[in-house]
Amino acid sequence: MIRRLCVIGVGLIGGSLALALRRAGYCGQIVGAGRHAETLERARDLGVIDGYDLDFAQAVGGADMVVLAVPMRAMATVLASIHDHLAPETILTDVGSAKGAVIEAAGAVFGDLPSAFVPGHPVAGTENSGVEAAFPELFQGRRVILTPTPASSPVAIAAVRKMWMAAGATVEEMDAVSHDRILAATSHLPHVVAFALVHALSQMEAESEVLRYAAGGFRDFTRIASSDPVMWRDICLTNAPAILDALDQFQAGLDELIQAISAGDGARIETMFREAKHTRDAFRY
Amino acid sequence: MIRRLCVIGVGLIGGSLALALRRAGYCGQIVGAGRHAETLERARDLGVIDGYDLDFAQAVGGADMVVLAVPMRAMATVLASIHDHLAPETILTDVGSAKGAVIEAAGAVFGDLPSAFVPGHPVAGTENSGVEAAFPELFQGRRVILTPTPASSPVAIAAVRKMWMAAGATVEEMDAVSHDRILAATSHLPHVVAFALVHALSQMEAESEVLRYAAGGFRDFTRIASSDPVMWRDICLTNAPAILDALDQFQAGLDELIQAISAGDGARIETMFREAKHTRDAFRY
Repeated sequence: MIRRLCVIGVGLIGGSLALALRRAGYCGQIVGAGRHAETLERARDLGVIDGYDLDFAQAVGGADMVVLAVPMRAMATVLASIHDHLAPETILTDVGSAKGAVIEAAGAVFGDLPSAFVPGHPVAGTENSGVEAAFPELFQGRRVILTPTPASSPVAIAAVRKMWMAAGATVEEMDAVSHDRILAATSHLPHVVAFALVHALSQMEAESEVLRYAAGGFRDFTRIASSDPVMWRDICLTNAPAILDALDQFQAGLDELIQAISAGDGARIETMFREAKHTRDAFRY
Repeated sequence: MIRRLCVIGVGLIGGSLALALRRAGYCGQIVGAGRHAETLERARDLGVIDGYDLDFAQAVGGADMVVLAVPMRAMATVLASIHDHLAPETILTDVGSAKGAVIEAAGAVFGDLPSAFVPGHPVAGTENSGVEAAFPELFQGRRVILTPTPASSPVAIAAVRKMWMAAGATVEEMDAVSHDRILAATSHLPHVVAFALVHALSQMEAESEVLRYAAGGFRDFTRIASSDPVMWRDICLTNAPAILDALDQFQAGLDELIQAISAGDGARIETMFREAKHTRDAFRY
């Protein structure tokens, strides 16, 4: 049970967490913080938060849990602005998609990483963003990956774990490097490829004519290209090495496939397609 | 109204067409043909066809409409086996995904292209295949593209058009080269990329570990990698030039994006993502 939760950044993720915890009765007061008063007022009107403070330092006062749900690029700034105002017992976590970068930012701000800091990442989301898109079931049955630092205390880890479980998620732990590598492959790579694919189509002659004929497969395949460009820009910037590695592997496979198509090598094409289908069919939720 | 329809290849597409036409009351007798008696018996048991013949030449006898719904690689063989048995008034169409290759095959078999031959392509499908996956609504509101040859008669074109409209589709006409270019971009390219992406993941270390963390975006994005490997191999082989062109454009954009990520060029990344999102969001069904 959290008495006072402070959510900095009340968008899709922060807002959905607040809604889920409130519905679970796991939270007393929920205070929001952010840069834009209108957004926070809308969040309050929607019943997502009880109140808000535009001053992050004020907002974290008296909170037993602070969740940073701001874009990756804002993490360092927000950490710097709350650094002197966090009580030692206040637990601090975040929802950033790249854990190495968040830990690096925290190290730069705090010097020694605090024992109450437990980085985390809910593997959930939709192509929509903003508090209007928030809903309490977003984390139901989804995975949240915690990447505790060597300094993270067992008490803090347990508190963050319980919060996500109350929101309906399954919680796992791994190191930040593994997290960043796995997410680069399963989430960042598909997003980058989908953006690149739709971008390529948009560059083709008579784009609208071409897209008029796109079928259902295209819709599903490219839905994630509707995702927030700024958020994904930041993910690309903050998890660049792992994403570039994954892109490298993808390009190697694509080159092989292109060579097979050029050479009319049906056996090679079929083998690659079969392996892909096998992998995809084995993938269950 | 078709008195006797002959569907050669009673799978997802051929079976769904038979079901749709029967439900629309647009068809008298429906005879199936194919290589495997078990498949055809199942199709008959499912009420998709009234009867079947393993001998294609027999099957087309007395039909006023023959639909070739066999894999692309089988088109030439099937055309050769029915060539001497088609009555001049029997209208012949197909559902192949690459129109240039079908027309080429017909030209090789028939010499002069018959006036009753109207190549076509329903832009519809699911990642499932086989007659068990067939359903009468498959073409409802979907596009069917006819690519008449210079020899196709207006009467034959009108008959094929009416058949697809009875099945619920919207029918359009274009030349085969435009068709192959547009489908390469909007359908073949996404499929090849999805296969390559899932293939890359399957090659990564600890595949199962990686895939365990894949989120919803991955599921939607890679659903088409569950498509029939043989069908897609054949599409790659039969529409290779247009697919290679589309892959070339995709790779150019991907290379640009990789360079931007390597260089930490946030502005360039964001511009590409915004353009992609704009294109995708403008895409309505």
